[in-house]
Amino acid sequence: MYSFRNDYSEGAHPTVLNALTRTNLEQTCGYGNDPYCTAAAERIRRLCGQPDADIHFLVGGTQTNLVVIHACLRSFEAVIAATTAHVNVHETGAIEATGHKVIAVPSSDGKLTPALMEGVLAVHSTEHMVRPKLVYLSDSTEIGTIYTRAELAAIREFCTANNLLLFLDGARLGSALTAEGNDLTLPDLAELTDAFYIGGTKNGALFGEALILTNPLMRTDFRFYMKQRGAILAKGRLLGIQFDALLENGLYFDLARHANAMATHLQEGIAALGYDFASNSPSNQIFPILPDSIVRRLQDVCEFEVDHTDGMGKTCIRLVTSWATPQEAVDQFLKDLAAIG
Amino acid sequence: MYSFRNDYSEGAHPTVLNALTRTNLEQTCGYGNDPYCTAAAERIRRLCGQPDADIHFLVGGTQTNLVVIHACLRSFEAVIAATTAHVNVHETGAIEATGHKVIAVPSSDGKLTPALMEGVLAVHSTEHMVRPKLVYLSDSTEIGTIYTRAELAAIREFCTANNLLLFLDGARLGSALTAEGNDLTLPDLAELTDAFYIGGTKNGALFGEALILTNPLMRTDFRFYMKQRGAILAKGRLLGIQFDALLENGLYFDLARHANAMATHLQEGIAALGYDFASNSPSNQIFPILPDSIVRRLQDVCEFEVDHTDGMGKTCIRLVTSWATPQEAVDQFLKDLAAIG
Amino acid sequence: MYSFRNDYSEGAHPTVLNALTRTNLEQTCGYGNDPYCTAAAERIRRLCGQPDADIHFLVGGTQTNLVVIHACLRSFEAVIAATTAHVNVHETGAIEATGHKVIAVPSSDGKLTPALMEGVLAVHSTEHMVRPKLVYLSDSTEIGTIYTRAELAAIREFCTANNLLLFLDGARLGSALTAEGNDLTLPDLAELTDAFYIGGTKNGALFGEALILTNPLMRTDFRFYMKQRGAILAKGRLLGIQFDALLENGLYFDLARHANAMATHLQEGIAALGYDFASNSPSNQIFPILPDSIVRRLQDVCEFEVDHTDGMGKTCIRLVTSWATPQEAVDQFLKDLAAIG
Amino acid sequence: MYSFRNDYSEGAHPTVLNALTRTNLEQTCGYGNDPYCTAAAERIRRLCGQPDADIHFLVGGTQTNLVVIHACLRSFEAVIAATTAHVNVHETGAIEATGHKVIAVPSSDGKLTPALMEGVLAVHSTEHMVRPKLVYLSDSTEIGTIYTRAELAAIREFCTANNLLLFLDGARLGSALTAEGNDLTLPDLAELTDAFYIGGTKNGALFGEALILTNPLMRTDFRFYMKQRGAILAKGRLLGIQFDALLENGLYFDLARHANAMATHLQEGIAALGYDFASNSPSNQIFPILPDSIVRRLQDVCEFEVDHTDGMGKTCIRLVTSWATPQEAVDQFLKDLAAIG
Repeated sequence: MYSFRNDYSEGAHPTVLNALTRTNLEQTCGYGNDPYCTAAAERIRRLCGQPDADIHFLVGGTQTNLVVIHACLRSFEAVIAATTAHVNVHETGAIEATGHKVIAVPSSDGKLTPALMEGVLAVHSTEHMVRPKLVYLSDSTEIGTIYTRAELAAIREFCTANNLLLFLDGARLGSALTAEGNDLTLPDLAELTDAFYIGGTKNGALFGEALILTNPLMRTDFRFYMKQRGAILAKGRLLGIQFDALLENGLYFDLARHANAMATHLQEGIAALGYDFASNSPSNQIFPILPDSIVRRLQDVCEFEVDHTDGMGKTCIRLVTSWATPQEAVDQFLKDLAAIG
Repeated sequence: MYSFRNDYSEGAHPTVLNALTRTNLEQTCGYGNDPYCTAAAERIRRLCGQPDADIHFLVGGTQTNLVVIHACLRSFEAVIAATTAHVNVHETGAIEATGHKVIAVPSSDGKLTPALMEGVLAVHSTEHMVRPKLVYLSDSTEIGTIYTRAELAAIREFCTANNLLLFLDGARLGSALTAEGNDLTLPDLAELTDAFYIGGTKNGALFGEALILTNPLMRTDFRFYMKQRGAILAKGRLLGIQFDALLENGLYFDLARHANAMATHLQEGIAALGYDFASNSPSNQIFPILPDSIVRRLQDVCEFEVDHTDGMGKTCIRLVTSWATPQEAVDQFLKDLAAIG
Repeated sequence: MYSFRNDYSEGAHPTVLNALTRTNLEQTCGYGNDPYCTAAAERIRRLCGQPDADIHFLVGGTQTNLVVIHACLRSFEAVIAATTAHVNVHETGAIEATGHKVIAVPSSDGKLTPALMEGVLAVHSTEHMVRPKLVYLSDSTEIGTIYTRAELAAIREFCTANNLLLFLDGARLGSALTAEGNDLTLPDLAELTDAFYIGGTKNGALFGEALILTNPLMRTDFRFYMKQRGAILAKGRLLGIQFDALLENGLYFDLARHANAMATHLQEGIAALGYDFASNSPSNQIFPILPDSIVRRLQDVCEFEVDHTDGMGKTCIRLVTSWATPQEAVDQFLKDLAAIG
Repeated sequence: MYSFRNDYSEGAHPTVLNALTRTNLEQTCGYGNDPYCTAAAERIRRLCGQPDADIHFLVGGTQTNLVVIHACLRSFEAVIAATTAHVNVHETGAIEATGHKVIAVPSSDGKLTPALMEGVLAVHSTEHMVRPKLVYLSDSTEIGTIYTRAELAAIREFCTANNLLLFLDGARLGSALTAEGNDLTLPDLAELTDAFYIGGTKNGALFGEALILTNPLMRTDFRFYMKQRGAILAKGRLLGIQFDALLENGLYFDLARHANAMATHLQEGIAALGYDFASNSPSNQIFPILPDSIVRRLQDVCEFEVDHTDGMGKTCIRLVTSWATPQEAVDQFLKDLAAIG
């Protein structure tokens, strides 16, 4: 039974696994101070056009989010995020556990805007309230939408004008940067944010997120913050090796393009059958809205997550594709849906 | 220029200050282990009809809230509160600084209901999310409204059914319990909540909140939590002496009744001039909505806080009365408003 | 039965209480933004010779320690303190609860020295360890000893050379600055530390510590840190009024001198009876070592704390005097000891 | 140049890597809820003789330590550890960052004893101090020593008698359990501790620690604590696959035996050359003490860490062997040392 449950159902892309195998018995020093991490970091700096950026490799997304956000903020400072943001809903209070409030802003498309942030700043004025200091975005967002360059530039401008830092969660950055409608590049992200990461876990790696810190203020002593949260991997080279393999020759983007193509194929097929979607997603997560009865029968033939039900007969499900999703699985899903519907 | 800015503009009621003066040179042991705290605690147990309750005296409201909430929760557990709740907006992230998420629920009247809490529980289901565990209420609320016995009993029932703890912030409890429409008593509160406090700072004391812990699970080792947050006063007796003076012969309630009477007088007078209010408050905080221009002129003749402006010519202000508010100040305000309006 | 248990057994010095009574019914704004706090702060700046220092008033010592230390440190930075330091042993892990390690250094006299700090720095070198960043001293120390100007200057020099901040806990600063052998002044402390406080609770106030922040880096946004820990008193003026009364005309120092004189009288009397002391204290805490049997009999006639027993027949007790200790109590103690011994 | 720097210089044992490769393209659900983790957990329960134990797989040691210790303790509770303990010195204050004090006890051999713990309990008696609640051991210890069954049983007995929890860090457990002089088994550990872990990172895995929770009180909701610290790996199966491969047919212990044999060979060879050692280690870390000049010349021919110097001409170095250490590297080291010495 095929699973569209998420984009981390398989292991690593064979190229990545081969790189790990090839280097397996070499001795290197630990904690990311090895030649592989150095090389991967150098490659990322080049790809981002940021020779001075600091690059750190972490194991997972929640870990990266909590380390970065905590490192940015003094204890009374807070992070602004969309209500749907991963840091707000799906990290078991990881940010609050480091002492910081997440100021959640309702947003219909999972994205923040200067206007939404302006509303937050307007009501936080004295020492009796937290001070908004960091803006958290995800691209693609948790509901599959993506930012345009103009949107991100406007947010950057707002942040600069209001002394806010800008952090972009790129757990699904590959999918975002290769989605239809995207006009952002790695150099854009490096220029427009203070920190962002290139997600490996959901796009071809066994695990791993590559964090780019461009703001000098955030770079100082960052490894202390990592270590304190258990976020320096002993065999750190595993991260360097994987990212070097992924980013060499654009494999990372090829994998993401495949995932997007599969999602688009799914979306078009589902739309052709007359169903709507909860969000307008060009990326590798789509959110069709189906009758409850159809969802129940689909669950017999494939795996996916239910996002929510409206209590009136309709259920929104989430379908996620990945670098490993075969065309056949997509075709089968559409055939099954057509047969059930 | 009279100030309706808050209910802690003056010192203590003379009876309270006299009690402090009378006992000033006696020697007692510190940290609340003195005969005055013992006597005040015993009096509170009697007033609450809870011979086994633990009573602790703390200096202020934010301190009490953060100590109690932190003591109740494991690190992944969260507190449910109205969006307007003091712990959500006016404590500089004090709860988050102890590691816990505040799940804020929009509520038009500043009060929680089982239906609102049900909505929170429905979306918090797995280990990827915080677990709602404690319900925070304030009575009177931050916008002056109060709970009825039926409302509180329904919340209690919901909490019991859903394994939630219930904590009531009584910073303005005197005003709530003496407000028109109130049918709650101290024994009701002690029976229906797991913890609540009787606020002294805003009703006749120099400072101090008397915390009543009825749930045995919350009582164990509570003083460790207090000490760790710097919340055990060295000369703890100052708190016992004040509460004993306030609660003897019902002075606490007499003072609150006066504050409410002054607020009601204000509210009726303002309403008679044709103005509306942002909330339906029977307690000692009222929220008239006035034209911006009138607010500006009122600021020349008395002090108060601006709650918010609607951007279209209207401003909501907050007027707070206290045990010390003279009838003359109220009359003068109404005269001034009539003259300006 | 007289108590030498501590120096917060009584209320406030009458001059202080009178000031509170005299101003009791005035209206002021809250949170320390009132004219009394302003005046007291201005007086403290003058006494310290630091026109630019920030002055904050807090309620108690543990609260002050945890707010200051947390405000100084990034999460991976640690505080160096003597093993006997209040923050290490008597605050229920308050510093750790804000996320920071206390690096405890054994010291025979309760004081730190550059050599002791050097040893700490030598073993903390990488991101796998905390970074020592703040030095915590208390004057007088927890065992009654005091720093000389030369000692403090040497520590300051070491701190400056090693990029360490210096914070001095002055819970018993009055006693230290008036002790025999002291050559430190308030201007010295303000010049040599980054932050220190003048303790009121243990020297004439009902409660209160006056914090002097001279390092500009520590001054930014300090009130946010205070509020987040529940450390901004609603009726903040109570602190300003008390400190203004204490510091006007040198009352604060007169009270401390009396306490020291009583302690010295005790110490000399006990020494004359042939007993030794666990520390060489010129301040208001003394630590005689007595046979266990004598201690047990003394406990029938006065109150004090047992510091420790050596398991071989000797017990070290702590006797604390205060501004309120009458000569008669001291004489009676010595008479009792002579009779028992 | 061969490196004796640590036991995580290489990747995974080929058997482990093969298992990852073989399963790479299978789809499983995430977060450790997959059949591989289930099977590995079941295998561990069998090996431990604990059918009801909870098994969790985490990525690294510091992460495991901070999640477990935080999950065990209320905020005022503290952990007792040897001064040399990893949690005390080499985790950048990770435990304190979760809010808890580490009470460090000097110990000449890196091990705790009931007598040492008794000393801690004796001085922690009131709510003004933290409460010792958890004992942290490591086996092998940070200086290579190991616990006997009798020693661990005595500690267990002390813990039970004093209401303490017992947690054993098994980052190098394989080496400990196969060392000469060891008489502990996995079932012993499961019976005598409340929680312990089998370290994979340092004995054949790419990464990973298998945590065994036997105390029912610690098992409740443990995954919430993991998730909140970013310690649930998305592709959790990577951990299950590795541990299943390691523990099938005793590979884990075979690898550890090899590491120990290499260390013993080194130790005997160094001793034969007339040098002393800083600790009596039967496990895979040894600590020879050599003249400074020899250490400097050794650094030209192989890699290792300097533990400390005595300032008088002698340096203690650390040599670590692993499952991957070839006999030739050991022989070469001894030849080099003989030539240099």
